[in-house]
Amino acid sequence: MIIKTDSIKFATKGDFDIVDITSRLQDAVAASLVEEGTVNVFAPGATAALTAIECESGLLEDFRDFFEKIIPSGGDYKHNLSHAARNGHSHVRASLIGPDMTIPVRKGKAFLGVWQRIVFIDTDSGPRERELVLTIIGTGKNEG
Amino acid sequence: MIIKTDSIKFATKGDFDIVDITSRLQDAVAASLVEEGTVNVFAPGATAALTAIECESGLLEDFRDFFEKIIPSGGDYKHNLSHAARNGHSHVRASLIGPDMTIPVRKGKAFLGVWQRIVFIDTDSGPRERELVLTIIGTGKNEG
Amino acid sequence: MIIKTDSIKFATKGDFDIVDITSRLQDAVAASLVEEGTVNVFAPGATAALTAIECESGLLEDFRDFFEKIIPSGGDYKHNLSHAARNGHSHVRASLIGPDMTIPVRKGKAFLGVWQRIVFIDTDSGPRERELVLTIIGTGKNEG
Repeated sequence: MIIKTDSIKFATKGDFDIVDITSRLQDAVAASLVEEGTVNVFAPGATAALTAIECESGLLEDFRDFFEKIIPSGGDYKHNLSHAARNGHSHVRASLIGPDMTIPVRKGKAFLGVWQRIVFIDTDSGPRERELVLTIIGTGKNEG
Repeated sequence: MIIKTDSIKFATKGDFDIVDITSRLQDAVAASLVEEGTVNVFAPGATAALTAIECESGLLEDFRDFFEKIIPSGGDYKHNLSHAARNGHSHVRASLIGPDMTIPVRKGKAFLGVWQRIVFIDTDSGPRERELVLTIIGTGKNEG
Repeated sequence: MIIKTDSIKFATKGDFDIVDITSRLQDAVAASLVEEGTVNVFAPGATAALTAIECESGLLEDFRDFFEKIIPSGGDYKHNLSHAARNGHSHVRASLIGPDMTIPVRKGKAFLGVWQRIVFIDTDSGPRERELVLTIIGTGKNEG
């Protein structure tokens, strides 16, 4: 059994910016030399979220529109009464989606559907530097 | 430490078909001979989702009704402008629920609440063949 | 590689009671002696959920208000026709949020954002005794 840790850093535009991290995730899995196991991806931060989606531009707008409808950025949030950032909606959205994903590794790759991409969503109101934390666990090429 | 990989295949009716996979998940955990650890279940596919729910028929209708209310199948989705399958709602639903679950294994079984079942939800519009990917990690019976 | 199992027990008030389990989670991770790896937290129970959120009192009310809006406690649920507990809303809420989280462990601690706390949410209608199941996997201090 091998365990490898890694991270992915990038800048976001905020405001529900959806960042496709799939190719960098695949690079990290390849570098780990894990052949069969799992990769855990975690987004530290209370306005940070991870999910899977097809990265088609119309669909990404649909996903944003859905969150704007059910958790509007201009809504009344008690969090905003004491926080100048006025990002109550950012927090509610992030807590609904969640910050963690665990994905199988097969033949040295994160195993995904054909159109399924892993995306980070920055629900916060403005641009930010983000760092995702990766943990890859499994067996290497010549192990049982 | 042991790591075992497995899969579960089945046909779905689509249209938010909810498939209880718990007994097949328990079979896979038993076959792995892992006694204490975790089992990761992953649904490859951008219109595939996993969650836990009590499999009571009225409740399953409530869960479907909720998604029909907040993400209506007959809504306007930009994804549908370029995709003949017109399954924008399917994608938004799947990305909201998420495709991965990691469940503890205790005494050789996935450890669940009394009424808690693990279900696959096919959010796509029509029937499909699906395959879930399982990764079981932990200690075997005679390990430390 | 080490694997350690643990649990966290507590009483809840029910009715979307949000319980911050972060410090007890950190205690369990420290006791496991795992330095680098992951900790899986699982809530057995069909009206039990886990997520991450900033534990600011206004925001916790915003999160509760959001669920009351989209899945109202006084709504019509088919589950309630056959279940005296009338907790259809509790189940739909729990199945939407989900019962599992997997969080990285770094330098012997669950690695979280500055304001990011791990919380258990009891979506059931009344007070309950709850027990969360923890599985910590990784390398110890003097391992490779």
